[in-house]
Amino acid sequence: MDPSISSIFNPKSIAVVGASKTPGKIGYEILSNILGYGYGGKVYPVNPTANEILGLKCYPKVSSIPGGVDMVVISVPAKSVLDVVEDAGNAGAKVAVVISSGFKEVGNVALEEELVRKARSYGMRVLGPNIFGVVYTPARLNASFGPRNVIPGGIAFITQSGALGIALMGMTIVERIGVSSIISVGNKADVDDADLLQFLADDPSTKVVLIYLEGVNDGRRFIKVASEVITKKPVVVIKAGRTEVGAKAVASHTGSLAGNVVVYKVAFNQAGILAAHNVEEAFDISRTFANLPFPTNEKLVVVTNGGGAGVLVTDTLAEYGITLTNPPQSLVEQVRKLVPPFASLANPIDVTGMISNEGYVNSLLAALNNPEVGAVLGVYCQTAVTDPTMIAGMLISKVKEMGGLNKPLAIALIGGEETYMAIKRLNDFGIPTFPMPERAATSIASMYNYLRMRESVISRLKELS
Amino acid sequence: MDPSISSIFNPKSIAVVGASKTPGKIGYEILSNILGYGYGGKVYPVNPTANEILGLKCYPKVSSIPGGVDMVVISVPAKSVLDVVEDAGNAGAKVAVVISSGFKEVGNVALEEELVRKARSYGMRVLGPNIFGVVYTPARLNASFGPRNVIPGGIAFITQSGALGIALMGMTIVERIGVSSIISVGNKADVDDADLLQFLADDPSTKVVLIYLEGVNDGRRFIKVASEVITKKPVVVIKAGRTEVGAKAVASHTGSLAGNVVVYKVAFNQAGILAAHNVEEAFDISRTFANLPFPTNEKLVVVTNGGGAGVLVTDTLAEYGITLTNPPQSLVEQVRKLVPPFASLANPIDVTGMISNEGYVNSLLAALNNPEVGAVLGVYCQTAVTDPTMIAGMLISKVKEMGGLNKPLAIALIGGEETYMAIKRLNDFGIPTFPMPERAATSIASMYNYLRMRESVISRLKELS
Repeated sequence: MDPSISSIFNPKSIAVVGASKTPGKIGYEILSNILGYGYGGKVYPVNPTANEILGLKCYPKVSSIPGGVDMVVISVPAKSVLDVVEDAGNAGAKVAVVISSGFKEVGNVALEEELVRKARSYGMRVLGPNIFGVVYTPARLNASFGPRNVIPGGIAFITQSGALGIALMGMTIVERIGVSSIISVGNKADVDDADLLQFLADDPSTKVVLIYLEGVNDGRRFIKVASEVITKKPVVVIKAGRTEVGAKAVASHTGSLAGNVVVYKVAFNQAGILAAHNVEEAFDISRTFANLPFPTNEKLVVVTNGGGAGVLVTDTLAEYGITLTNPPQSLVEQVRKLVPPFASLANPIDVTGMISNEGYVNSLLAALNNPEVGAVLGVYCQTAVTDPTMIAGMLISKVKEMGGLNKPLAIALIGGEETYMAIKRLNDFGIPTFPMPERAATSIASMYNYLRMRESVISRLKELS
Repeated sequence: MDPSISSIFNPKSIAVVGASKTPGKIGYEILSNILGYGYGGKVYPVNPTANEILGLKCYPKVSSIPGGVDMVVISVPAKSVLDVVEDAGNAGAKVAVVISSGFKEVGNVALEEELVRKARSYGMRVLGPNIFGVVYTPARLNASFGPRNVIPGGIAFITQSGALGIALMGMTIVERIGVSSIISVGNKADVDDADLLQFLADDPSTKVVLIYLEGVNDGRRFIKVASEVITKKPVVVIKAGRTEVGAKAVASHTGSLAGNVVVYKVAFNQAGILAAHNVEEAFDISRTFANLPFPTNEKLVVVTNGGGAGVLVTDTLAEYGITLTNPPQSLVEQVRKLVPPFASLANPIDVTGMISNEGYVNSLLAALNNPEVGAVLGVYCQTAVTDPTMIAGMLISKVKEMGGLNKPLAIALIGGEETYMAIKRLNDFGIPTFPMPERAATSIASMYNYLRMRESVISRLKELS
């Protein structure tokens, strides 16, 4: 891997070219986010018309910064970008994060090619152009003009779409989804998904990579790298243009080809990539991978206080290829003591709507602590005799006592206002919790599907080597 | 239709048998909800051990209430229910809402059959047993032990599951989903989905019927009635037990048969029933039908400020059978004046991330007001240059000026905290708005699918007659 790629995530110093004193301007917002989110390295505003911006000494150009910089964030009109790159190259910068638009996406193909040629001639890599920036939470780096206070966590989110990416960045904060990284790749003139995947594969803060993908320049390399990465951690892709008309819309949007719809499907499957059906599912799955250990065996047990909700998750699991089988006898014996006599001790285990807070939480814990159980799916319908806030609190303190989860636990909490608060609390703690039964089921099913795909990719890679 | 069925929705008077002074007890909660939600008819607590409950005179039995009652809500132990029914029958009650459990669901089949036989011998119908009650917002009737302040609206929700139903009742309040009715049908010993559908078909407050269904006693009648109803309004079904393993889980849950999985699929399709993939989709679709007029023609136009989000809805629409075609030329000419020169005036119309609040709202309005457009899907990604709160406010006041929508408009608003507030505001106003692009696309696609199915059902019914 090119060592310059790691400067995208862990730059020792950053110059913001086109830095501005005017709130609302991109050159202000990026500088302000870098400072406000707590980046620890050196930061240099660059703007020939200012002496000081946001309390920092301002430099006329990158090459006038004493000691040089690692990362140059460029937010100047397209026609000036090449001069900045040349100057930054002379100053020894390792990576140019080109925010500026006005390149290939508006037909300026030659300008974009020249940008990359020039940067590479100095050994510099280019992220972008036409992007909103880059975030890497382990380094407290938010070099973007998106929302500032992203939540640190295990998802690396790579996005080819700017507007959607920045909007989803805001969504992650509301939905309490933690990220290790958010990388806007825009036109992918130089650095592409494969380059980033190679870094993220070995990044200990990243548990899962989530990619919003319209098309790739080098499909063969993408699939090769992705299949290597998924032997280490899951890769979830939202493929835009996965239908024929969608693919045409991609062409009209970016001028690039979305590629053959069928080829993508086959290639993703072969590479072991999890293709999400939609954005919500992509983040649900990714949050689950980011927070949970992998299933310890094939036996998934569902614990529900509502028979109907239990049936719905059974259906969804079946639709995702997971068939529930009887719970271990040892678990049945334990749970029998916790539940009303008319409870159903099949799988789902229906502890009934009469169960108390303690009874529900203890049934979940019995499943979690049973060595024959590989993963647990909790389904809870708010009832008059239980309190979702109490259940969340009790569960969190018990899991803390256990020293954390040693197998996956995903939860569906269905109900009113208190339920929604309990969902936030559990998600903040790191137990993936959803307001709909099927979303929890899909998330836990994806863990099993990932393990299956990983196994088949590993054995195929062995055959090839 | 049996006129007693309408007493479930519009009783002139209600007796609550098993009424209690103790908060938390079902007999207290139901009485308290009936009074607190604003029911306008006469209400009589019945309990031989009390003189007064919640400020109302309490009667020892139903037959001691002067002038009799329409509806008797029964919350006493199963073994006493038959005596209450006999007494209520003698007093001329029209419908018994049997909250009590302890019947067929625990194996007491004979007791349940006797309950129905006895009630029918007095010309009385039975809702339940084993239910949480009934809500009908046009009558300000909340005779349930669920949450009190359900939001009036156009969805009638029939649920075979108690725990899930009551939890979803809470969900509707948080998600600002308005209902005309919520009917817990439980064991369906007597009144079933078909009976309720016949009433709801002609209920002007009900725009769509949403059913959580595990199984039906008389499949032929259900399908016959449903296909008649869908000529008047859509019927959306969440079918629990739609996979083989799910069907087995239904059997273990209720003791009833979920029926043959394939037969259901075929029958639903023939009847024109919209089979939801999951609970979230069911409510998304239903909210859309409840609030919007039907498409006026085949031309669906998407207006987006984010190319990527536009591609995702294009894919989802295609997956639901809707192919976008070019926007009308007259609309292209109008929108051209509102958007940056590099905007894409295909379908989706990509007004670009540079668009202002006014520009976005005016583009939506141009599509809404264009007579060649049959339906509009708005997709908006929160950007630095726009404000979702402003967009929601401007759109609401413009639609008010127009005197409401004369064609469907569903919206996806993607972003952070302000976006989520704007979503609530638009939903409160009656424009179905979602935080994910695919959810909005699915909702609008379902309208077209309903119209197609309705057409084929109508022509088949004509052939048969």
